[in-house]
Amino acid sequence: MSRYGAQYGPDLTFLGIDRCDLAEPETFADADVVIVGAPFDGGTSHRPGTRFGPMAIRQACYLPHDGSRPHLALRTDALQDLRVVDAGDVEMYSGDVERSIHDLEAAVFTVAQAGAVPLILGGDHTIALPDATGVARHHGMGRVSMLHFDAHADTGDIEFGSLYGHGQPMRRLIESGALRGDRFLQLGLRGYWPGPETLAWMAQQRMRSFEMTEIGKRGLDDCLDEAFGIATDECEGVFLSVDVDVCDPGHAPGTGTPEPGGLSARQLLDAVRRICLELPVVGIDIVEVSPPYDHAEITAFLANRVALEALSAMAARRNGISHDPAGPLLEGR
Amino acid sequence: MSRYGAQYGPDLTFLGIDRCDLAEPETFADADVVIVGAPFDGGTSHRPGTRFGPMAIRQACYLPHDGSRPHLALRTDALQDLRVVDAGDVEMYSGDVERSIHDLEAAVFTVAQAGAVPLILGGDHTIALPDATGVARHHGMGRVSMLHFDAHADTGDIEFGSLYGHGQPMRRLIESGALRGDRFLQLGLRGYWPGPETLAWMAQQRMRSFEMTEIGKRGLDDCLDEAFGIATDECEGVFLSVDVDVCDPGHAPGTGTPEPGGLSARQLLDAVRRICLELPVVGIDIVEVSPPYDHAEITAFLANRVALEALSAMAARRNGISHDPAGPLLEGR
Amino acid sequence: MSRYGAQYGPDLTFLGIDRCDLAEPETFADADVVIVGAPFDGGTSHRPGTRFGPMAIRQACYLPHDGSRPHLALRTDALQDLRVVDAGDVEMYSGDVERSIHDLEAAVFTVAQAGAVPLILGGDHTIALPDATGVARHHGMGRVSMLHFDAHADTGDIEFGSLYGHGQPMRRLIESGALRGDRFLQLGLRGYWPGPETLAWMAQQRMRSFEMTEIGKRGLDDCLDEAFGIATDECEGVFLSVDVDVCDPGHAPGTGTPEPGGLSARQLLDAVRRICLELPVVGIDIVEVSPPYDHAEITAFLANRVALEALSAMAARRNGISHDPAGPLLEGR
Amino acid sequence: MSRYGAQYGPDLTFLGIDRCDLAEPETFADADVVIVGAPFDGGTSHRPGTRFGPMAIRQACYLPHDGSRPHLALRTDALQDLRVVDAGDVEMYSGDVERSIHDLEAAVFTVAQAGAVPLILGGDHTIALPDATGVARHHGMGRVSMLHFDAHADTGDIEFGSLYGHGQPMRRLIESGALRGDRFLQLGLRGYWPGPETLAWMAQQRMRSFEMTEIGKRGLDDCLDEAFGIATDECEGVFLSVDVDVCDPGHAPGTGTPEPGGLSARQLLDAVRRICLELPVVGIDIVEVSPPYDHAEITAFLANRVALEALSAMAARRNGISHDPAGPLLEGR
Amino acid sequence: MSRYGAQYGPDLTFLGIDRCDLAEPETFADADVVIVGAPFDGGTSHRPGTRFGPMAIRQACYLPHDGSRPHLALRTDALQDLRVVDAGDVEMYSGDVERSIHDLEAAVFTVAQAGAVPLILGGDHTIALPDATGVARHHGMGRVSMLHFDAHADTGDIEFGSLYGHGQPMRRLIESGALRGDRFLQLGLRGYWPGPETLAWMAQQRMRSFEMTEIGKRGLDDCLDEAFGIATDECEGVFLSVDVDVCDPGHAPGTGTPEPGGLSARQLLDAVRRICLELPVVGIDIVEVSPPYDHAEITAFLANRVALEALSAMAARRNGISHDPAGPLLEGR
Amino acid sequence: MSRYGAQYGPDLTFLGIDRCDLAEPETFADADVVIVGAPFDGGTSHRPGTRFGPMAIRQACYLPHDGSRPHLALRTDALQDLRVVDAGDVEMYSGDVERSIHDLEAAVFTVAQAGAVPLILGGDHTIALPDATGVARHHGMGRVSMLHFDAHADTGDIEFGSLYGHGQPMRRLIESGALRGDRFLQLGLRGYWPGPETLAWMAQQRMRSFEMTEIGKRGLDDCLDEAFGIATDECEGVFLSVDVDVCDPGHAPGTGTPEPGGLSARQLLDAVRRICLELPVVGIDIVEVSPPYDHAEITAFLANRVALEALSAMAARRNGISHDPAGPLLEGR
Repeated sequence: MSRYGAQYGPDLTFLGIDRCDLAEPETFADADVVIVGAPFDGGTSHRPGTRFGPMAIRQACYLPHDGSRPHLALRTDALQDLRVVDAGDVEMYSGDVERSIHDLEAAVFTVAQAGAVPLILGGDHTIALPDATGVARHHGMGRVSMLHFDAHADTGDIEFGSLYGHGQPMRRLIESGALRGDRFLQLGLRGYWPGPETLAWMAQQRMRSFEMTEIGKRGLDDCLDEAFGIATDECEGVFLSVDVDVCDPGHAPGTGTPEPGGLSARQLLDAVRRICLELPVVGIDIVEVSPPYDHAEITAFLANRVALEALSAMAARRNGISHDPAGPLLEGR
Repeated sequence: MSRYGAQYGPDLTFLGIDRCDLAEPETFADADVVIVGAPFDGGTSHRPGTRFGPMAIRQACYLPHDGSRPHLALRTDALQDLRVVDAGDVEMYSGDVERSIHDLEAAVFTVAQAGAVPLILGGDHTIALPDATGVARHHGMGRVSMLHFDAHADTGDIEFGSLYGHGQPMRRLIESGALRGDRFLQLGLRGYWPGPETLAWMAQQRMRSFEMTEIGKRGLDDCLDEAFGIATDECEGVFLSVDVDVCDPGHAPGTGTPEPGGLSARQLLDAVRRICLELPVVGIDIVEVSPPYDHAEITAFLANRVALEALSAMAARRNGISHDPAGPLLEGR
Repeated sequence: MSRYGAQYGPDLTFLGIDRCDLAEPETFADADVVIVGAPFDGGTSHRPGTRFGPMAIRQACYLPHDGSRPHLALRTDALQDLRVVDAGDVEMYSGDVERSIHDLEAAVFTVAQAGAVPLILGGDHTIALPDATGVARHHGMGRVSMLHFDAHADTGDIEFGSLYGHGQPMRRLIESGALRGDRFLQLGLRGYWPGPETLAWMAQQRMRSFEMTEIGKRGLDDCLDEAFGIATDECEGVFLSVDVDVCDPGHAPGTGTPEPGGLSARQLLDAVRRICLELPVVGIDIVEVSPPYDHAEITAFLANRVALEALSAMAARRNGISHDPAGPLLEGR
Repeated sequence: MSRYGAQYGPDLTFLGIDRCDLAEPETFADADVVIVGAPFDGGTSHRPGTRFGPMAIRQACYLPHDGSRPHLALRTDALQDLRVVDAGDVEMYSGDVERSIHDLEAAVFTVAQAGAVPLILGGDHTIALPDATGVARHHGMGRVSMLHFDAHADTGDIEFGSLYGHGQPMRRLIESGALRGDRFLQLGLRGYWPGPETLAWMAQQRMRSFEMTEIGKRGLDDCLDEAFGIATDECEGVFLSVDVDVCDPGHAPGTGTPEPGGLSARQLLDAVRRICLELPVVGIDIVEVSPPYDHAEITAFLANRVALEALSAMAARRNGISHDPAGPLLEGR
Repeated sequence: MSRYGAQYGPDLTFLGIDRCDLAEPETFADADVVIVGAPFDGGTSHRPGTRFGPMAIRQACYLPHDGSRPHLALRTDALQDLRVVDAGDVEMYSGDVERSIHDLEAAVFTVAQAGAVPLILGGDHTIALPDATGVARHHGMGRVSMLHFDAHADTGDIEFGSLYGHGQPMRRLIESGALRGDRFLQLGLRGYWPGPETLAWMAQQRMRSFEMTEIGKRGLDDCLDEAFGIATDECEGVFLSVDVDVCDPGHAPGTGTPEPGGLSARQLLDAVRRICLELPVVGIDIVEVSPPYDHAEITAFLANRVALEALSAMAARRNGISHDPAGPLLEGR
Repeated sequence: MSRYGAQYGPDLTFLGIDRCDLAEPETFADADVVIVGAPFDGGTSHRPGTRFGPMAIRQACYLPHDGSRPHLALRTDALQDLRVVDAGDVEMYSGDVERSIHDLEAAVFTVAQAGAVPLILGGDHTIALPDATGVARHHGMGRVSMLHFDAHADTGDIEFGSLYGHGQPMRRLIESGALRGDRFLQLGLRGYWPGPETLAWMAQQRMRSFEMTEIGKRGLDDCLDEAFGIATDECEGVFLSVDVDVCDPGHAPGTGTPEPGGLSARQLLDAVRRICLELPVVGIDIVEVSPPYDHAEITAFLANRVALEALSAMAARRNGISHDPAGPLLEGR
């Protein structure tokens, strides 16, 4: 007994994959990846709506919900070539951030401990704290690097009187020792937050943050090369945290704190592919999809594809599939 | 020092009326009505967004924001004929329902104690608990009747593991003794919630709930007559709680839990007018306006007009203006 | 040479009826009704967009654009039983209200002089001034009554430094003597505008304004009976001016200054039918449809049906079709 | 094996009720009602989108998808008190109306033959042909009356060169003898379609069509009384076909051919309740919900509530629950 | 007699150009290009709405509908410098894919046979089958190359039980011999469809498909160079088929099966220009614009500009206008 | 006394900065930049709505409205490091373009004369005429260069019978001698307007216009280098006029005349930064934001960020902050 299902709607799974139940270990004993929904928006500093993110990301596809998605470029069907199961949502009452964080961390830890990669569908970015903590508790505190795509550093201290919210998880993760500041890689930052004091704290932690100007001048691949070097130094695994607002609002309007001037959807997908092909990813979250602000589901589609891109690249890595990005799609030409 | 202003945007006031600061008693010492924003949506069981309700309701008008609104039918300018001031928002972190409730109750009590009528702009219906409690603490526990417009009874017990949320405030108010169950009048209920157990509890409390079928068959005015009789029996004041979802979703789409088959906007405005003209209203809240789900601001406009209708009728009552609803607008014809 | 066509798009006609050209009298010599587009929104005090009203109203129908619309209840096909032609738009530069008014008045007068009923598709309500003036210049200054459906009295004096705008046409019409104040019937007023000074001026003119409360208490038909008595006293013709904001925003969201608590679409259609069946209508305008604020074209559909209802009732009146509103649709049952 | 599931998305059921499989008779042997999705919009004459109707109607609820919906006024939980199961969608390729109709009719007949009431979620109104035919084949050709809520008569002959489409099912049903013309009751007609020739054909069939003007003058309940008398004369069962466009576009914007001036949502719900309480309903379809044109899901919510209202009233009828529409909700007051 | 006009609205032409009638050969005898509307969405596997594509594309422009569009960069006014006429829509009943395909193919063949280039405005991509077949029947089966911009290969076999739909036209074209597989160039593919079996079939046909990764790595111009080489080898003409979903959903949200990570609008326009400047284009279709899912018409604008870009480049090619893409717009600087 | 405040809503300031009053010189005597709202859309040739631009741009931010915005990349807080004040709106009646232009020019001149840089928030592009004229009157007629980002040249002559509108300001500015044609730099042009005659006039004036094709081929930075050389030749100051439609509609949908194929938001922000860092900017306007056509405020957010980018770069230039665009965000890595 006990699968909670979906907090806000029918109990469906990511693109029709199998269910598992975190209360029944045998249902995910052999899983490579376990998808966990985190329908929480109590931590947002502005527009809410991310509580509907998990539901939207699971459904946003025009193809049959049949648990199969062959990736054109990578020539692998991650949902078949890996064992990917969906644990449903963790109940996260948006009115109680502390209880919600606690329960999600327990769920993520359960997944990690079972040897699977947790792929958490947010929810606002508050959840990065329990997500990465749950993973680090298994792989070793300070032994996991962070690759963090975002318009915002999310290293705030106290906001609205609380230590927990979508602008603060990265600070909490470093303070607790779950992650090392000097293995914290941020990509896509821009805009007008945080202020000098917080930036000074970040520098002190020896974080490496790539603002959009740097990415624009050097090229994303060059920045990724540098980031990969740092991430794999003395760390066993990588946590990938993707805030959809790293993309330009034109490509991802359905989010709470849109900041103009971001990556294109294409850039994000390419980066996620490289990370999951080249690095040992041990946890992923995809956050800040806010359906009420979306149009024609384009942001939900993007997040769905970020998840599939990550899974496909992990499958290719696992199965030793080689991939020449400049090569032709079809053999013989 | 200290006015908090608006939690989610520029610090503007309801239609341009004067500011006050709850931390400075002299700024509202002579007020008849104090408007308080309660930008909270952490208690919603489904769609969020009501955190932007106060901002939307304050702004939703095509006329100049000049602190003057002469009511055509009642021939009074409530914003001039009463002293109405706007205290801005109470900071309500949606991720912490308990702290938020506590702080709002303190604000409402401060207003009531100063002899003014608090008019709280929500926010989700969670806030009815602190709103009515704050008023009852001043006027006497159990001495205030409730007139509650809503599609839902809001008498749930525990939801998502919490005692506090937008489906439970009415139960908490009766349990705490703030309000009497047999002076609790509900209008507009319909749909599929709550279940028999809760309805039995409500009957036990001797609540009087008018479901839409009854209103449809008897007429709204007849139901109001009955309700007014109960409300004024052994009670000194009336609290008016208007959940916009009492209206049909066609008239109020911008809300979290829309239930087809409700009142028309015209019916709601007429009812609010009668209540504030005929009864001693000591507190008001207007809740569940969720701007992300609104279209062309029509729900925000409605809530703004509910506030003005209440204020105008209170002004007419205060100033002894007589009003013949069937009479002509202009003299001489 | 010279038909201007449509100011903002392809040159199409109302539901596919024939074109005429106001510069070529023979093209509308035998017309019963001439449709004129007035794509102007320079006079709006708040949301613009009505410049796209004529285009939207002409097109808003799911049936073939074939110049035929048999009315179910009235059993007449107005577009066939009357000669109705479409003159296209008058060029109205929204940045120049005075020139725009001047040119529209000339066009309307041309139509009236030719013995046809002008049906003007707005545009904001500024156009009622040239519309009714153009008609009155032909039928006699002060010889035409006004039946005015609106949430607002539109009797303002100077706004934004101008005598001309969508809140002032009715005052200008009475001041100029085009229409008599005591043959001015307003239905559907509500809300918070205008203030006492203007209401006093209106009373002085002996206008008869039915606020929504009166309509609600007495019933719309009773109010119409009274209005019809006044309208036909010493007047030869009736001008019908329909501002869609007379309807509740739930039924007509696509408008500039929505005021909650209005008529239902059904009520408006019934009233328009009675007017055009029972009174000698000599001019009509339908105004304040603002497509950018519409949803799924429901406001444009409503305005289209107001036009068809008026035309159908005029055709029935002309052709002596009797109509029992309580009778069955089909013979024999 | 073989449940098809949902044609356009995840395989979920109406509000979480149990699945059945039409290919496995034992899965619905004891069912009172079987829900069938008909995701078809190939027959629409204008806006498509109804293919997503079944998915939208199944999901449109803010309450848990737990297969329980206690009706406040009727005091029955239809999803528990009846055995209601969901067969998923029939595959209906919108590009092939003839095959689609054929397959749906087979599915409906299967349900009827098993002794259950089919409740079909459309889809455009084309499906009324297979829906009512499938039912009549079991209960007897010409032995089932039709109660048809719609803005349109749907009695067209050939459109776009086809005998089958959403404007023609009622003609086909009478022509085939599935239903009797003189037991065909239509409510809510209005607008400008069909023309005189078709109306003459309808009169010839002795159909009884209540146009909105008649409903407005006589009252809906009076019209229903008359309709009930006809429907129960020499007929064993009633088919209820609800086109959401019977409601005003303000209450049901998400539809393909909106016609202003319709019923309110409240009126429709009350009528559906009376029908299912007072008459022996043997089949139901709810059609023309077009999610791409909806706003904030209000049309989908309405259709969901029409389904629940019908089920609840059927449950009350089955279980002999008495219902005084003018009585209080709670006992003891 | 006989021009059908528009299937779903007023009979307007592409940006105001002249009408022609396919039943009257003299009306397009001298045409360089004939525009044909294909308002069909019966073949879509998910979101419909493309039936409104032709109407939307014809109208989507803020400039006067005057049949003139001087191209800034190319310095030609295609609508004047070529003879471009609009044949209106072919009636395509979405409920009957086979008849629709048949009738469209006849229309396209009629145009091609008259020596004009057909430019077909879709409609879903089902229409590529009749479009390219109609052209190939005139220019020679297997003598026309295909340049196909799309997120999807559209080489599926049977879907929803049908050989015809928007995911299958390219397979049917190769199978029938209308086009050669080894002269089939696809650009912009990405995502998770089709699967390995279909990709193997495509490789067998020796199709050349450029997935987005390859385009990203090599650059679009480099890929076009390669494609041009293949396309002009042993083929007399080129058919250009543009599915707007080749662009990123951020640039083209109004489509049925959006796939994140596509071309920018700028890239698509540049590619279309090069193709029509450098290659002998004999037919074009622009498909999958779905207005119900569009926002502020941006997808319709894009499709309109794709059409104009193609026409302008064809005019420049025809008239020998030279174009230096890196040169200044104005002479003398 | 006399601050006008906001024409269409509450009197709020750009992100919470201080107010000033143009009628009281001491309120902006020490200002570096004065923000002026120009809520005008009477000059638009198609979609209106820009009257709500100033209000939308001032508010479009998810951060506290506290008058502080530290720029991540430039490490300056422009709203603190410069003295930036907000004068509110100039009243601009959209129905009277001539009076509106006159009053705005007076306001801008007042600001320039006080030694501050006017930053005008439009409004449609009509306002560039008074904006640049007001600045040139202070700095010297013909002594200010123009850097003009736009899809359109805006050099039309007479439109809708008027010399003034959003397609003509640049011609008027050159004709009047306010600006020199040969110091007029345009970036981002594309599409189908204006025609050859106007282009010839532009060439005659020796304007330098960079069409998108040139920018695409050469790169934006290369074009800017060339433009900067021209702009600083014999001119003392630069006026920067940013029409948001220079960006692709995917990045800026909320505008009146969207033209596909534009800059990305990132490109625009980078260009604005370079201009304000490297050139002596003496005036700025940001125009053509039309909120009714926006989605999720993404266009308003973009315009807000263009303003902040300009201010931040001006602050950095003023304070000698060096900026290496390819360098890391945080020190020490």
